[in-house]
Amino acid sequence: MGQGASSLKITTHVERFTTPLYLESGRILEPYELIYETYGELNQDKSNVVVICHALTGSHHAAGLYEGDRKAGWWDAMIGSAKAIDTDKYFVICVNVVGSCFGSTGPLSPQYPSSELYRLKFPVITISDIVKAQITLFDRLGIHKAHAVIGGSMGGMQALCFSIEHSNFAKKHIILASTYATSAWAIAFNKVARESVLKDPLFKDGFYDPIEIKKSGFPGLSTGRMCGYISYLSPDTMDQKFSRNYVQTDGLYELFGRFEVERYLDYNGLNFVNWFDPLSFLYITKAINIFDATRNFDSLEDSLSRIKSKLTLISFSSDLLFLPREMAKIHQTMCNIGKENLSTYIEVDSSYGHDGFLVEIDKFSHHVGDALQERE
Amino acid sequence: MGQGASSLKITTHVERFTTPLYLESGRILEPYELIYETYGELNQDKSNVVVICHALTGSHHAAGLYEGDRKAGWWDAMIGSAKAIDTDKYFVICVNVVGSCFGSTGPLSPQYPSSELYRLKFPVITISDIVKAQITLFDRLGIHKAHAVIGGSMGGMQALCFSIEHSNFAKKHIILASTYATSAWAIAFNKVARESVLKDPLFKDGFYDPIEIKKSGFPGLSTGRMCGYISYLSPDTMDQKFSRNYVQTDGLYELFGRFEVERYLDYNGLNFVNWFDPLSFLYITKAINIFDATRNFDSLEDSLSRIKSKLTLISFSSDLLFLPREMAKIHQTMCNIGKENLSTYIEVDSSYGHDGFLVEIDKFSHHVGDALQERE
Repeated sequence: MGQGASSLKITTHVERFTTPLYLESGRILEPYELIYETYGELNQDKSNVVVICHALTGSHHAAGLYEGDRKAGWWDAMIGSAKAIDTDKYFVICVNVVGSCFGSTGPLSPQYPSSELYRLKFPVITISDIVKAQITLFDRLGIHKAHAVIGGSMGGMQALCFSIEHSNFAKKHIILASTYATSAWAIAFNKVARESVLKDPLFKDGFYDPIEIKKSGFPGLSTGRMCGYISYLSPDTMDQKFSRNYVQTDGLYELFGRFEVERYLDYNGLNFVNWFDPLSFLYITKAINIFDATRNFDSLEDSLSRIKSKLTLISFSSDLLFLPREMAKIHQTMCNIGKENLSTYIEVDSSYGHDGFLVEIDKFSHHVGDALQERE
Repeated sequence: MGQGASSLKITTHVERFTTPLYLESGRILEPYELIYETYGELNQDKSNVVVICHALTGSHHAAGLYEGDRKAGWWDAMIGSAKAIDTDKYFVICVNVVGSCFGSTGPLSPQYPSSELYRLKFPVITISDIVKAQITLFDRLGIHKAHAVIGGSMGGMQALCFSIEHSNFAKKHIILASTYATSAWAIAFNKVARESVLKDPLFKDGFYDPIEIKKSGFPGLSTGRMCGYISYLSPDTMDQKFSRNYVQTDGLYELFGRFEVERYLDYNGLNFVNWFDPLSFLYITKAINIFDATRNFDSLEDSLSRIKSKLTLISFSSDLLFLPREMAKIHQTMCNIGKENLSTYIEVDSSYGHDGFLVEIDKFSHHVGDALQERE
C-alpha cells in the first residue's frame, strides 16, 4: 500500500496447502504455497470476485504501489477505483502461478521435507495445473463462484482453461491477446530464449546461485529476454519508439556501436535478471508451449462445447505472437457449435503488437468494463 | 562442376588486389582478395553479364554442384540452362562479399604484412564498401557494364546500392525481399543473434580457435542462428511445416522434451557453426544494420533520383523481416520523383516469409526472367 494509491486496499497473503496437487503429468506437488493479492472488498454474498490471471513474467502484484516502490502493479491502469476493473464494486484477486518466482511454489522452493531446492527436479506444470491450484485456493477462501476471470497472454490461456475445465466457476471470461493452442511460431520464440538460458555456462544444470546471478548477471537470460521483447512488440512500435536512431555517444562505424533499439534491448535484458529467475523462465515457457485447449478433447469444438458462460475475446491487430486469427478462431468455433450468444470477439486496432494488452489501455479498457457490467 | 549440373559451366577464381579499398568508415582494406564464381560464357562484346549478390550467410557459390557435394549452390533453381537466369544467354557472376568467410577477405584473414589475423581489428564494412569492391573486380575483368544486378535480402541492398552509387554500371536491377534502410525491427533480430555470439564465453573477444569451434560447437552462434530463422519464416510456414507436432521420442511433460519446430531449430542452429564463422556473422550483420540508402543524401527522393536505369522490386507478402511496404516505398518514391517508367513493383503472394526469395522459385522466377528480357 503506498503513495498515490491510498484509496486502493491492497492485501498480500500466502496460503500453504498440504494436500497434494495432482498434476496433469501424473506427478504431484506437495506441499505447495500460493501467494496472492487482493484489491477492494469482498461483498457479503461473495458475488463480486474478479480473478486476474497474469502472464509469463507477471506476478500477483497486479495493481497499486508498494511503499517505497516507484512502479505500480503490472495492470494498475486497469484495476482501481473507477477504473475498468472497478475496485469500488469488485473484489479483485490475482494469484502468482505455481512455477513462478514471486512467492508461489516454484523450482527454487525446497522439496519438503528436505531443504534442498527442486531446481530441475521441479515437475513440469501446465496451464491446467496452474488453474487447478488457483481453484484450490479459492475453495479455501470460500469463493466458489467468481463474477469474472480475466487475463492476457498466458493469463488468457488460464481464463480459457477456467471456462472449459471449471465451467461453473465464473460467470464471465475475458481473454486478451491469447490463443487456444500455442503455435509453432510462438514456440520458436520461446525456443531461442530457452536455449539462451540453457547454453549459458552460468546455468550449471540449474545449480546456479540465485543471489550471485542477480549481482553478477546472467547473460543467457538477458539475451533470451531480448528475443521475447521482439515478439511482444511490432515493426510499427519499434519504428515509432526507436526509428533508426543511433546512440549518440556510439560511432556508426564501430562494430559494437549501437542503435537505440539495441540499447533498449540491452537495458531491459540486463535488468530482467534482477527480477526474474532462469528456472522459472524455463518452467513457465514450457507451460505456455504445451498449452493446448484441445488436449484431452476430440477437437476445439468438443473442448469449447464445455463452456457454459460468457467469453469476451479481445485481440490486438498487430499482435505477432498470438495472432488475431487465433482468437477469432475461438469465436468462430463458438459460433459453429451454436454458442454465439456466449462469445464476443473484438479486434482492437493497435500498432503496439502483443504488448497492446499491457500498454494501450485506452483502446480496450472500456470493452473490459462493458463485459464486466453486461447482464448475463 | 558435378553431377546433374554437367551443362553448367562453373568456374571459381580468387583475385587479389594490392591497391587500397577506401572504406566508408575512413579506414582502408589493403590488400584484399575476392573469391567469385561464374556460370555460362561471357559474350564477345561483354554485354551479357548478370551479377548476383548474395545474402548474409550466402556465398559466391550460387548455382551448380561441386564434385562430391549433395547440395547445389544457394540459388541453383534460378540459375542455369533454360532457367530464369539463363546461362545459355547470360554470363552470371557472383562475388563473395568482403567480411564473409568463404574466401574473400574477412576478419579471419591475415593483416598483411603480418600473419596475425584481423579478428576484431577488421574494419566495419558497409554495403557500399561491398559493392565498391565488386566494381573493382569487374574493372579488372574488363566488365564496365552489366546487363543486370540481382539480389535478395542483403543481396537486394547491394543491387539498390549499385543502382544509386554506380548508376551507369547496370541496365537493370532486380531487388527481392529487401529494403532501402534496415528497420529497428530487423536490427532487433540481429541484436539477439549478435548478443548470443558475443556473450558466449567461447567467443573470447574474437580469439576463438576457428577449427576448434567447428569440432566442439559454438552454442552462441547456434542460438543466434535460431533467432535468424524465426525472422526468415512466418507463422504460416511454421504451422505448415511443424504444426504442434512433438518429437516422437520426447515426453510431453519432460522439461526438455521438444516440439518438431524446436528440433528443426536445434538441428539448423547446431549445423550453422560448421559452415559459418562468428566474426563474419558480426561484421555482416553490422553491415546490414547500418545499411541506409539515404545516408549521404538529403532524403530517399534525393537518393533515388540518382538512378538511371530500371528497378524491378519483388516483395513477398508474408515477409516479416523486410516488410513489403518497405519495398513498396521505394517504388512509390520512384513514382513521386517522376521515375515511374524506371520502377516496377511486384508483391508475390506467399506464406513463406522472408525465405520466399530462396524457396518459392515458382512464384517469382518468371518475374525475374521477364525483367531480364524486357527491352530497356
